[in-house]
Amino acid sequence: MPQAVAGPEIERLIQLLARMPGLGPRSARRAALQLIKKRDTLLAPLADAMRVAVERIVVCRECGNVDTCDPCTICSDPKRDPTVLVVVEDVSDLWALERSGAVQARYHVLGGVLSALDGVRPEHLNIASLAERAANPEVTEIIIALNATVDGQTTAHYVTDAIKALGLKVTRLAHGVPVGGELDYLDEGTLTAAIRSRTAF
Amino acid sequence: MPQAVAGPEIERLIQLLARMPGLGPRSARRAALQLIKKRDTLLAPLADAMRVAVERIVVCRECGNVDTCDPCTICSDPKRDPTVLVVVEDVSDLWALERSGAVQARYHVLGGVLSALDGVRPEHLNIASLAERAANPEVTEIIIALNATVDGQTTAHYVTDAIKALGLKVTRLAHGVPVGGELDYLDEGTLTAAIRSRTAF
Repeated sequence: MPQAVAGPEIERLIQLLARMPGLGPRSARRAALQLIKKRDTLLAPLADAMRVAVERIVVCRECGNVDTCDPCTICSDPKRDPTVLVVVEDVSDLWALERSGAVQARYHVLGGVLSALDGVRPEHLNIASLAERAANPEVTEIIIALNATVDGQTTAHYVTDAIKALGLKVTRLAHGVPVGGELDYLDEGTLTAAIRSRTAF
Repeated sequence: MPQAVAGPEIERLIQLLARMPGLGPRSARRAALQLIKKRDTLLAPLADAMRVAVERIVVCRECGNVDTCDPCTICSDPKRDPTVLVVVEDVSDLWALERSGAVQARYHVLGGVLSALDGVRPEHLNIASLAERAANPEVTEIIIALNATVDGQTTAHYVTDAIKALGLKVTRLAHGVPVGGELDYLDEGTLTAAIRSRTAF
């Protein structure tokens, strides 16, 4: 632990910044100095934006998204397709899908994936609430948009089992060559999946 | 520009975070999500620490350091050697020297270095105030602790000229092999300097 070189207020700011993902102790110090230098154009607006976030951001009780209203903007958007529910692991995945604009439906954030190693069990995830929402007769399709990792796919199977009795169409994301990807750099699993799911040209 | 995926408050937080050094648009989004998840343990304390920084941090009118008091903790510390002034480019350099604990003197932050390319001229730097402080009869030595870059060394020469008339001892940091450094990876300039300034074993 290096000795404190600035007043306790600055040291506290540095220590808190260092706990942000993507910043370590050294880059936090650099960031703090930049913030202090740009006090009026960056530090003050950022402090205000954070204060607003603390006070106003809530978790949507429908889907688990974070927003300033509950139900969230997506859940209360009447233009969304009410027949489809997209199951994602985390809010960041929801944001990624929204950025792509690929689907105009509602989401369901599980809040994690099953993991024996990390002790994450079904009751820790929002699976019961998914089953409730899926039971709504309006819903006809569940898109499982979980990461293509072992834990993600285990969870996908568990979720599929949990809602199987409802007789809904359950789909998952396609495996294949990423757009812009080069075959030489892809793993065998992806190539096998891409060949198996080949489409007419 | 990707479409906004969250409410305006969250988007604003992300945009401001993306302007911090070390964070880009993507890592800012990740950071924002982490902050929102750790609302009580990280986001709220960080917002408070930033608010305190906005309100209380001032630039020391003596040396140019940033602190919550003016003159700063270092300038008002009676245990510091009053005969030595260490000239640094930026507050980050002052912090680096303080972390090393190598010198127990006072500092003078120039606020930059001369640069023809960036249009930084002597009147943009705190050189006049340095000459004033150096004229204090208590001061007997000026340590020029500027970066060993072209601009840093140009500035060092300019500063030395500006205070030459006062007849003070003016020193600069030694050039040589960094502690832990391997000769094979060092440039010729450093090796030449290290040989020239060799010391008795």
